[in-house]
Amino acid sequence: MWTFFKAVIQKLSPVQIIIGYYFIAVTVSTLLLSLPIAIKPEVRWTFLDALFTAVSAVSVTGLSVINIVDTFSIPGIFILMFVLQFGGIGVMTLGTFLWVILGKKIGLKERQLIMTDQNQTQLSGLVKLLIQLIKIIVIIEMIGAIVLGIYFLRYYPDLNQAMLHGLFLSVSATTNAGFDITGQSMIPYKGDYFIQTVTILLLILGAIGFPVLIETKEFLSNRARVYKFRFSLFSKITSVTFFGFVFGGTVLILLLEFNGFLAGKAWHEAFFYSLFMSSNTRSAGLSTMDINSFSEPTQLLMSFMMFIGASPSSTGGGIRTTTFAIMILFLWNFARGSRSIKVFDREICEEDIYKATAVMLMGIVLCFVSIIVMTITEDFSLTQIIFEVCSAFGTVGLSFGITPDLSTTGKIIDMILMFIGRVGIVSFLFIMGRREKSDNYHYPKERIIIG
Amino acid sequence: MWTFFKAVIQKLSPVQIIIGYYFIAVTVSTLLLSLPIAIKPEVRWTFLDALFTAVSAVSVTGLSVINIVDTFSIPGIFILMFVLQFGGIGVMTLGTFLWVILGKKIGLKERQLIMTDQNQTQLSGLVKLLIQLIKIIVIIEMIGAIVLGIYFLRYYPDLNQAMLHGLFLSVSATTNAGFDITGQSMIPYKGDYFIQTVTILLLILGAIGFPVLIETKEFLSNRARVYKFRFSLFSKITSVTFFGFVFGGTVLILLLEFNGFLAGKAWHEAFFYSLFMSSNTRSAGLSTMDINSFSEPTQLLMSFMMFIGASPSSTGGGIRTTTFAIMILFLWNFARGSRSIKVFDREICEEDIYKATAVMLMGIVLCFVSIIVMTITEDFSLTQIIFEVCSAFGTVGLSFGITPDLSTTGKIIDMILMFIGRVGIVSFLFIMGRREKSDNYHYPKERIIIG
Ligand SMILES: [K+]
Ligand SMILES: [K+]
Repeated sequence: MWTFFKAVIQKLSPVQIIIGYYFIAVTVSTLLLSLPIAIKPEVRWTFLDALFTAVSAVSVTGLSVINIVDTFSIPGIFILMFVLQFGGIGVMTLGTFLWVILGKKIGLKERQLIMTDQNQTQLSGLVKLLIQLIKIIVIIEMIGAIVLGIYFLRYYPDLNQAMLHGLFLSVSATTNAGFDITGQSMIPYKGDYFIQTVTILLLILGAIGFPVLIETKEFLSNRARVYKFRFSLFSKITSVTFFGFVFGGTVLILLLEFNGFLAGKAWHEAFFYSLFMSSNTRSAGLSTMDINSFSEPTQLLMSFMMFIGASPSSTGGGIRTTTFAIMILFLWNFARGSRSIKVFDREICEEDIYKATAVMLMGIVLCFVSIIVMTITEDFSLTQIIFEVCSAFGTVGLSFGITPDLSTTGKIIDMILMFIGRVGIVSFLFIMGRREKSDNYHYPKERIIIG
Repeated sequence: MWTFFKAVIQKLSPVQIIIGYYFIAVTVSTLLLSLPIAIKPEVRWTFLDALFTAVSAVSVTGLSVINIVDTFSIPGIFILMFVLQFGGIGVMTLGTFLWVILGKKIGLKERQLIMTDQNQTQLSGLVKLLIQLIKIIVIIEMIGAIVLGIYFLRYYPDLNQAMLHGLFLSVSATTNAGFDITGQSMIPYKGDYFIQTVTILLLILGAIGFPVLIETKEFLSNRARVYKFRFSLFSKITSVTFFGFVFGGTVLILLLEFNGFLAGKAWHEAFFYSLFMSSNTRSAGLSTMDINSFSEPTQLLMSFMMFIGASPSSTGGGIRTTTFAIMILFLWNFARGSRSIKVFDREICEEDIYKATAVMLMGIVLCFVSIIVMTITEDFSLTQIIFEVCSAFGTVGLSFGITPDLSTTGKIIDMILMFIGRVGIVSFLFIMGRREKSDNYHYPKERIIIG
């Protein structure tokens, strides 16, 4: 039995194993979230609801066909937080962690596996690194939970209540899940800048990408300059792009809604609404207002920002910041007639330009087809559908509130998008295709006319 | 004076000269179309109307803020046809033709110039080729005009009337301009399959790409197999993609409108509506029905098809068929883990993959920004705006009929899109950037994490 299982595992490619894990995680989560103790007694809970909630939780998207606080009992909420950890930290990371604490040695095959999931390009030290990661995430969550829990005593005089709200928000923000137990996302705290600031810090730590966290930790512990430390090109590119989107988005929302939703609001109110909503399009998907109140251009801008998503190797989805950055750099250099992309005193590999092109294209194809199908099957406006599709693909979870009213087809499309958004398009493309082949033959090259 | 002029010309790059020519063509056309004899006496004609009509005519788009037949006198209609020839055959082609008939030798500089406009990759024999082209186009137009003119006696018993309608439709279809003098596009002929078939044939000849025409002519004149003839890779790729869109589009419209616009229609009616509308999204923009009658998915599908556009080196616009084909082939091969794109026993050059990527990206950026701006400035639905933007960029000219009611900003956006769509993004990118530079220095390459 065990030998058979092992043989099967060894026959599968890393990508197939990851997909397998995700499927198992979704199945287990669906079962757990369907347990009688998880659900409030009066709630009718269909299989599709349970499956959708599990997919949304494992992919830390936060789109929801039900209201969490009305559906789940206290044990159910804890089960949900447990599932969010699985999704947020990554099935593979947790799997590795289990192997490590069970005392098993991790061989090359398993390391490759982690490498593909978190997209790491260096093998060495990965196991140590993953343990570090989990430590970092759990420590962040715990600090967030304590700070928010104590602060929440203002809102919920009962200590258990306050701590539960603090813990849930901290986990939901750090894993960028975006679920809420208030029943209306962050709207109850729309005037509370302390909670919003803490939430933004937590979601950034979750969405900026694990390598950035690890490198920052190394940088800080090396302040005495024991050795020469350099941030990787990846960390630089993804951080600049990430914060570019956060602040660029804030400014654009301010400008677009100046005479709209933000009209008549004080400058600090306007600023915090814009900053909070902009930050949350990266991946978290929490909200201090009703998306319906924004004007159409803002809604489309946010759709675009959600389509891009967060950093690779983070709790976020979408085509990822680096893909976008490479495409913009490529376009800029192409227009200047330059062949090589130089940035931060380094050059981008052609391999990565190809990869980014494929990811970008596939993301566009996927979302476009989803949008077309949903205009056929759903009765909502085009803007609402575009927003929903980009939100699912970016594993963001913001919505016009149409998710519960989608047709079964619409819900299935949402689930597929959340899954691919979380797994990442590079992995997805390799599942679709066959394994890497060597080209044994060539034809003569011939130029053709383009655009 | 002449020496000064010559010196200026020689300092400019081919791309800059082409742009210059287009600007001159637009200016001259605006003036010609504003002549008192061109306009009916009772018509009020603003500068913006005249400019918009000139840009639309030179770029053979056919979007219109006015009704042609109510605005122009008979001489005006002939001036318009003259402008369409300028746009359709290409300012450069006509320029070369003039040089040739004026007995001037064409030097390398001028040949390069034509090369960039029509994107030809081989220099030799280009002048001879261009003359052939103009001959072919004019012959096609004349045959079309005679066939349609005689047939039109059914509709217009007056011979002059019938011939005018025949000539105008033939020119409008062959140059893919899509203007009409019926006042309601091809709706009066919605039941006339003969006119529709002739129109489709003419528009295909104009939009399939000049190299395909030339090669087909060579192939036909070589039926005795005097020498070994081979269609170029370009001709094969663009033809397959072109007809793929025509027939794929027909089938999809049939399926999408089966229970919608086409419900209750006979099979031949349904087929001809679908075929005609699908063919016209390539570039011509003539219409046998009101776009408002289609359902939203069909409208979005047509927007996508217009965004792609026609073949390079044709009378059409958009990102062009070859760009789309390369991107799909690239994605397919990437998913299979293969580095080289093999098609029709040839391999695609990396250079062309880069070019296609840049064109695709720039097209998306351009249309996306235009759509966002128009949702701010215009009061129309998102679907109508997307359709209008794709129609202008693809120089197609189909519309919900909103063009006359656009704000000045909206009209200016339309004009910019028609201009870039016609000139082509490759040329446009080179205007924006500086000239090709050699990279004299390099940095170490560093891999980053993508998607
Ligand atoms: K989320
Ligand atoms: K047209």
